[in-house]
Amino acid sequence: MEKAKIQKYAELFARVGGNVQKGDAVVIDADTQDAAFARLLAESAYDLGAKEVFHRWDDSICRRLKYLRAGDEAFDAFPQWLTDSYDHFDAQKAVLLYIESDDPDLLAGVSASRVSRYQAARNAALKKHRELSMSNAVRWSIAAIPSPAWARKIFPTLAGDEAVEKLWQAIMEITRMNEPDPIEAWHRHNQNFQGRLAYLNQKNFRSLRYRNALGTDLTVEMPEGHLWLGGAEHDKEGVPFNPNIPTEEIFSAPKRDGVNGRVVSSMPLSYNGNLIENFEFTFQDGQAISFKAKKNEEILRGLLDNDGGARYLGEIALVPFDSPITRMGLLFYNTLFDENASCHFALGKGYPVCLAGSDSMSAAEVAKAGVNDSLIHVDFMVGTEDLSVIGLDKDGVETPVFVNGKFAQDKS
Amino acid sequence: MEKAKIQKYAELFARVGGNVQKGDAVVIDADTQDAAFARLLAESAYDLGAKEVFHRWDDSICRRLKYLRAGDEAFDAFPQWLTDSYDHFDAQKAVLLYIESDDPDLLAGVSASRVSRYQAARNAALKKHRELSMSNAVRWSIAAIPSPAWARKIFPTLAGDEAVEKLWQAIMEITRMNEPDPIEAWHRHNQNFQGRLAYLNQKNFRSLRYRNALGTDLTVEMPEGHLWLGGAEHDKEGVPFNPNIPTEEIFSAPKRDGVNGRVVSSMPLSYNGNLIENFEFTFQDGQAISFKAKKNEEILRGLLDNDGGARYLGEIALVPFDSPITRMGLLFYNTLFDENASCHFALGKGYPVCLAGSDSMSAAEVAKAGVNDSLIHVDFMVGTEDLSVIGLDKDGVETPVFVNGKFAQDKS
Repeated sequence: MEKAKIQKYAELFARVGGNVQKGDAVVIDADTQDAAFARLLAESAYDLGAKEVFHRWDDSICRRLKYLRAGDEAFDAFPQWLTDSYDHFDAQKAVLLYIESDDPDLLAGVSASRVSRYQAARNAALKKHRELSMSNAVRWSIAAIPSPAWARKIFPTLAGDEAVEKLWQAIMEITRMNEPDPIEAWHRHNQNFQGRLAYLNQKNFRSLRYRNALGTDLTVEMPEGHLWLGGAEHDKEGVPFNPNIPTEEIFSAPKRDGVNGRVVSSMPLSYNGNLIENFEFTFQDGQAISFKAKKNEEILRGLLDNDGGARYLGEIALVPFDSPITRMGLLFYNTLFDENASCHFALGKGYPVCLAGSDSMSAAEVAKAGVNDSLIHVDFMVGTEDLSVIGLDKDGVETPVFVNGKFAQDKS
Repeated sequence: MEKAKIQKYAELFARVGGNVQKGDAVVIDADTQDAAFARLLAESAYDLGAKEVFHRWDDSICRRLKYLRAGDEAFDAFPQWLTDSYDHFDAQKAVLLYIESDDPDLLAGVSASRVSRYQAARNAALKKHRELSMSNAVRWSIAAIPSPAWARKIFPTLAGDEAVEKLWQAIMEITRMNEPDPIEAWHRHNQNFQGRLAYLNQKNFRSLRYRNALGTDLTVEMPEGHLWLGGAEHDKEGVPFNPNIPTEEIFSAPKRDGVNGRVVSSMPLSYNGNLIENFEFTFQDGQAISFKAKKNEEILRGLLDNDGGARYLGEIALVPFDSPITRMGLLFYNTLFDENASCHFALGKGYPVCLAGSDSMSAAEVAKAGVNDSLIHVDFMVGTEDLSVIGLDKDGVETPVFVNGKFAQDKS
């Protein structure tokens, strides 16, 4: 990919993703392999007037090495100074820009217990930080760039450089970078969400029933006062930002104890560097009371055992099966992309912003309103070409929301 | 350079440099451009039984970008969480391995005030950490690998890859990696220091007088109980380690207020990414009362203005002009190498371990014994082919220590 276009992509990330404002502190989360892009991103942030850009570097290969070779006690603690570093930047309302490039198979063969114990320690330590970002107290955004290992996973028959170039092309297409004016295209995209959001929020369904030929038959109740969101969000000062580049989903928070039935995954789940494949859950009164997976069931168990909230749903998201990302027909092995190709749910914490008036609600009030809490938030895909979703309003009237994997409303 | 040899160099660094022991925590300081080597180094540390390896990453290009583009207030503070991270690892007596690869011209054109203010903030914040490492309470080591920018600076007429390969060859030669058994060669090298150290420690000179044709005429008094050190050092538990790879110097601490005369630099000084060239100092009762430099005099002024101890000498080091590194005839623009090609001094803090019995002395007692304290420690080169150093013992007897840039003792 030519450097000028990558530079423009960095600009999109800083401007539309994090929407960096004059005087903002900015934190860039990057792997050492992303250094060239992370520098361009920093330049874009300074161009927008950032007062300081801090890079929080990591090296995925060293992370794997640590899981394989460190002493066992290394996985039960998250150092206080590292937690403090998040608080330090949150106190300044620093804009967080996460560069995603991990090999989906990074942690293949690594002890699942080590990974889940460290995740649990990390999630517990960063609970406050996660609450701030999930309630939009700080602006944050995730965008991806190809790494050789990730590109090879998606395009296994191509040579290294070709695979990287092909993944760049896919990312540029999906993120509207091929439009004449990508930033303007994102403004239009964000506006386009408004019609569907207005429709769903006005319908105010009490529950949604999912069914398809894979065997999914799940009823999801919605809490009172729930809001459907999509596209740009806003921080507490009303400054818009796009948490995900790309984004095609409309999402809300389900009622914690109102989920019942069976749901079958339609795509593998890349979790902590491992692929969990062909899995399903049975829910009763909100809780996943049973589960199975053809591959990496133990990893899935570790995920569910994170805490009391990890077996409950925190997010419900609608994505038509004809989204630009679905049409591309690629499996990215990465939630940032795959969640935009498919209806999905998330296990774990729900977004408080999916409740009307959440700005003035305490965490306890958000929980009482029915939004799940957990140290984790992990999306999994359920959308299929034959998915049907039926909405039931407070008068018991049924409305088709999805027919054959697409918004029913679009047909009329 | 072939990967197997680089791997062996990483092993030398972990084993002879830091001397990583079973159960040690290890911190690797590395630039993102050093990632491949930093991974090999981590593997070597794990091979030696490290319980955990933490990488403290930095990116020199982003560092430069910050100096150029961040708001001015970014350079007056060093965050508490980052200071705490040093304390966290020091509390575990983590072994520190610093990978050096910086472009000597990294900060050319950057505001000298920003650099010196940030250095001052950093040095003040990390004072405790520096005291622990300079008194060998923790084991630490510095070794270098080529970066394209550094290699181009040394070999400006070579193409990028060739310059890097040439610098690898120089580093491998100088660090005894071309010996049949490099680790054994380092054991011999460390033993070879013992003869000269015993001679100088037995002589117990009261002062040393430096003279050469550049115009240097400097008398340096030595404190009572001073020790000459060189080669391997030992931590408080008696575990040996080599702080510098390579090392050819024999060093001690001068008497803080006992330095008088003029000293002229014999090599440029690479300080904070800037080259200070053709500089000299005049000392009176220990203090540099005047100085000049043909290039980057303002950077030099910033260095001397760090604190009250920055204008006093903290280290005196003897290196024969026929050392293997001198004979190579290269200017490395990097203290780790250039200090081993030339007699030198350091401005700033002296090593407490250069006093007999320092293990049981407080910082105040070390200062009272005459060893300088400062937040900085910066070496500069004074050795020349015609350098004469004469030692004066307590009875006023004169002994030639260096004649024509070499140890006089070697002639007999």
